[in-house]
Amino acid sequence: MNTSVATVCLSGGLVEKIHACAEAGFDGVEIMDADLVAAPESPEEIRALCDRLGLRIDLFQPFRDAEGVDDATFADTLRRAGAKFDVMERLGADHMLVCSNVATATTGDEDVTAGQLAALADLAAERGIRIAYEALAWGRFVDDYRVAWRIVEKADRPNLGLCLDSFHILSRGHDPSAIEEIPGEQIFFLQLADAPALDMDVLQWSRHHRLFPGEGDFDLTGFLGHVLRAGYRGPLSLEVFNDTFRQTDVVRTAAHARRSLTWLADRTATENGWSGARIREAQHVTGIDFVEVAGADLRDVDEVLGQLGFAFRGRHRSKPVRLWTAGETRIVLDEQDRAERPRLSGIGLTVGDARAASERAAQLGAPAAYRRTYRGEVELRAVSAPDGTGIYWNDRDPEGSWIREFDGGDAHAGFTSRVDHVNLSYAWQEFDEAVLFMSSVVGLGARQAAEVPGPRGLVRSQVMRSSDGVVRFPMNLAPPTAPVPDRHVAIRVDDAVAVARRARERGLRFLPIPDNAYDDLRARFALDAPFLDTLRELGLLYDRDADGEFIHFYTPTIGGLFIEVVERRGAYDGYGAPGAPVRLQAQRQLARTRQRWTEGAA
Amino acid sequence: MNTSVATVCLSGGLVEKIHACAEAGFDGVEIMDADLVAAPESPEEIRALCDRLGLRIDLFQPFRDAEGVDDATFADTLRRAGAKFDVMERLGADHMLVCSNVATATTGDEDVTAGQLAALADLAAERGIRIAYEALAWGRFVDDYRVAWRIVEKADRPNLGLCLDSFHILSRGHDPSAIEEIPGEQIFFLQLADAPALDMDVLQWSRHHRLFPGEGDFDLTGFLGHVLRAGYRGPLSLEVFNDTFRQTDVVRTAAHARRSLTWLADRTATENGWSGARIREAQHVTGIDFVEVAGADLRDVDEVLGQLGFAFRGRHRSKPVRLWTAGETRIVLDEQDRAERPRLSGIGLTVGDARAASERAAQLGAPAAYRRTYRGEVELRAVSAPDGTGIYWNDRDPEGSWIREFDGGDAHAGFTSRVDHVNLSYAWQEFDEAVLFMSSVVGLGARQAAEVPGPRGLVRSQVMRSSDGVVRFPMNLAPPTAPVPDRHVAIRVDDAVAVARRARERGLRFLPIPDNAYDDLRARFALDAPFLDTLRELGLLYDRDADGEFIHFYTPTIGGLFIEVVERRGAYDGYGAPGAPVRLQAQRQLARTRQRWTEGAA
Repeated sequence: MNTSVATVCLSGGLVEKIHACAEAGFDGVEIMDADLVAAPESPEEIRALCDRLGLRIDLFQPFRDAEGVDDATFADTLRRAGAKFDVMERLGADHMLVCSNVATATTGDEDVTAGQLAALADLAAERGIRIAYEALAWGRFVDDYRVAWRIVEKADRPNLGLCLDSFHILSRGHDPSAIEEIPGEQIFFLQLADAPALDMDVLQWSRHHRLFPGEGDFDLTGFLGHVLRAGYRGPLSLEVFNDTFRQTDVVRTAAHARRSLTWLADRTATENGWSGARIREAQHVTGIDFVEVAGADLRDVDEVLGQLGFAFRGRHRSKPVRLWTAGETRIVLDEQDRAERPRLSGIGLTVGDARAASERAAQLGAPAAYRRTYRGEVELRAVSAPDGTGIYWNDRDPEGSWIREFDGGDAHAGFTSRVDHVNLSYAWQEFDEAVLFMSSVVGLGARQAAEVPGPRGLVRSQVMRSSDGVVRFPMNLAPPTAPVPDRHVAIRVDDAVAVARRARERGLRFLPIPDNAYDDLRARFALDAPFLDTLRELGLLYDRDADGEFIHFYTPTIGGLFIEVVERRGAYDGYGAPGAPVRLQAQRQLARTRQRWTEGAA
Repeated sequence: MNTSVATVCLSGGLVEKIHACAEAGFDGVEIMDADLVAAPESPEEIRALCDRLGLRIDLFQPFRDAEGVDDATFADTLRRAGAKFDVMERLGADHMLVCSNVATATTGDEDVTAGQLAALADLAAERGIRIAYEALAWGRFVDDYRVAWRIVEKADRPNLGLCLDSFHILSRGHDPSAIEEIPGEQIFFLQLADAPALDMDVLQWSRHHRLFPGEGDFDLTGFLGHVLRAGYRGPLSLEVFNDTFRQTDVVRTAAHARRSLTWLADRTATENGWSGARIREAQHVTGIDFVEVAGADLRDVDEVLGQLGFAFRGRHRSKPVRLWTAGETRIVLDEQDRAERPRLSGIGLTVGDARAASERAAQLGAPAAYRRTYRGEVELRAVSAPDGTGIYWNDRDPEGSWIREFDGGDAHAGFTSRVDHVNLSYAWQEFDEAVLFMSSVVGLGARQAAEVPGPRGLVRSQVMRSSDGVVRFPMNLAPPTAPVPDRHVAIRVDDAVAVARRARERGLRFLPIPDNAYDDLRARFALDAPFLDTLRELGLLYDRDADGEFIHFYTPTIGGLFIEVVERRGAYDGYGAPGAPVRLQAQRQLARTRQRWTEGAA
């Protein structure tokens, strides 16, 4: 598989972009004309840089408004093209993208358009240049790849072929299966972009909301299958216009982009039963082995876990690490960290083959995470997620493996539980990358995103989960100017009321839930008075839908982390979203009160 | 005019929102149910707070999915409503918004819906509550105010009327003129929101992109005219769901919201020739009197102005302020500022009646700007724009007024010029407020926005200008994570080539324009070789369209400011947008180089 990427996907200057593409392992780049125009380096210098870095220049793009025009305008098309061919020659680029006319076309007569493209191709042929003709989704007359192909066939020039772009085809809902009827060698170039399913103007959608493959709602594996079955063997290239990626760090975004292609090629090969482009298979995640909390001083977390009724299982024999468990929930407290603010630092996943999982992660470009391990201790394979969270894989029984390294505790918790979900949160510019990481490296699937109103704007939430729902990561995206929301671990118990009552008796402070929220529960659900009183007395939240019921409560936040206890009744499959605004407001209120106390004390 | 605002427009907790609404001068609020549910204060406490602050609670909202349902569901509607009426009674709210059913409706039979609304109104009547029924643009069966009105008429209850929301009507393109056929007293409530013309899903459009009146593309003055002609005399209320306003400072956003209503009421009265709700008339701005640059040390600006050929007109007789002019361009350098980074700090505008202009600004809530003035000096009236820039009004000849306070300079510049435009720039969350300020306080009109690709993402640019084009402020909005772009003053000269050549001779450094940009100009415009050579030699940029030509160049940035020199040929009316990406990239390159030098020196 040859990979390429359009420089327009990335932020910064052309030279920075090229370095980042090489570092991310791309084989080639599409040079965007505007990027070159704004660069202080000459085309010869850009060419030399790409040569030195081992990057091909796969495409020079775009050349606009070429065809379907009157004779005078077409004469100027040829003049303009000649000047750009000069640049391409200096650059050493031999493919030019010509996109269908948006602005100046006066005719949709396919014979005229074909004739003009043939003339343009003939001019290009003198320079050894090939023309890849692309139907833009919003082209004036040509807005469908099937029309573009008819025109290319009519023009009948050996150096004139098609450029296919998944966005232009799938955004319009055009059936991509007809791609298989095009001879593969006539497809000169392939541009790939995913996108969320949005109902909006297609040009705005394209300009702002494209995503890398695996991050949106397009069936890109199906699309790529058609293109490869047609016999296309050129590069898989990314052309993703996205407001976020244009702003984020260029090196990081290039690596992110490259990962999406590895994932796409593998997934396409898997779905079609092909042997090429395969990496190690994704391991089905069968459970959460543990969650790890790190910080310089985690005594507050110890206290909360004790009050909740977790069992203290002891200290690690060689590291300042402690373990608390309650049934299958295992929380590791790691004080090998300098951060004052405790944070969720790692998630252990149970898989069938830990080695295969970590090899797949490496193939997808995930950096290995360092974890200090002494002789005789269990070595867990781990990688760093893009936000720095460690992802660990374990294929052994935890009681028989790493738990043995902890001594001095007690095995009996006050209740059994397991991790229901881990709520992750991201800054605005980290979100799409995190979604791709969770789908490609961890093998989770994305559910429909929702929006929750918070006191600082709408929080977008997207659940990534294993197909059987055993592993669930609701992922939250804060509004740009709001602080990144705290993360939390939700544990599922059989009887949340009992756990809450015991925890209160042990002195646990709960997140205070306003009285108004209970009046609202009464209005919405006609709960019977004793049950409503219990909820109110214990500060529990409640939700109900057609599938079942959800009872839950929250601890106050410690650093950047809190714990939620949930009980699911019936087949309730949600996360208590109606209570989220109440929770967010209560957390904000508490944080402000604390801040005032701190300021008062200072 | 009574004014009101929905708490959902603002960020923060309910008590903060209420305080901000009172401070901004609203007469009442719409309490959003979800805001109350999440508040720790009881309804009685919220009521007491509003009483104390002199705010009416105009509306409790929304009550959803009430009508068009089967009998069992409707029984639950009445039960739910009863519980919410309890809350309203405690709150002292006597109007409930009931919006058309989105989720649970099973019938569009208007008799059924009317019967259910009548029953709901009867239950409300027992509590002294009035029901305002609203057709949501995406209602399941009722999505048009004319249908809602038919149903209300059918239900025929004295305490059942309509709530009209400009967004739900104008977003669907429904003709608002039929509002005049509704008796005014049957319109129980009016919600106003503007929005940009977007082609997208109406629910998403409504949820994320509403704007305050005067900031979008809706004809709200026409809309309000219909409602007032119908005889509506209730409050003008704002219901604006907007991702930005939900994040920005609540006090500032409330003031911003309040200004939009003053503007709207005044404008509507003006357009209809009514006497009510009028404030001082907007003054037509006939020119830029001066621009002011502030900073602790402005010697670098002196140097650049001198090299450009400006005349040094002298020092102010009582303040550390200097004046440079070139024809009608007057640049005031004010060193009464502690900022190390020179910045554009003020804009003087020429108007017919400065007192009227400043009175209008005060009526629109713009704070007066402080300007030290000694006896015998000309006092210019001024207000602060939301970003802190001073806006000054002068209705006298500058040579005969404030310029006389400067001595010791020379009157002769190397060229004549005038300010062509002042390019302003804003952080993401300041933009809409700035647009409203420029339209309402300064009286400029908005042109279609454009997007310019920069190295850190797309820069959104919207030109605000006087109808005759004499005053032009292109306003730029940076992407959220990018730094706010530098501002610049563009001066228009008769012969940019001559000015550039003389400035070079005087040693002015130009913003370096890459060679590739000239190859691109050659390709695009077929310029003749000598002219292209001149552009290249002098580092000038060029644009051409059907109306004329544009030749321009930039000085390097000093602090947060640079100067552009432009020549317009023919009727060219743009700003050289095709050159903006080149300029942005060149500025970034230069800033990085400087940073490296600074770091190297440190």
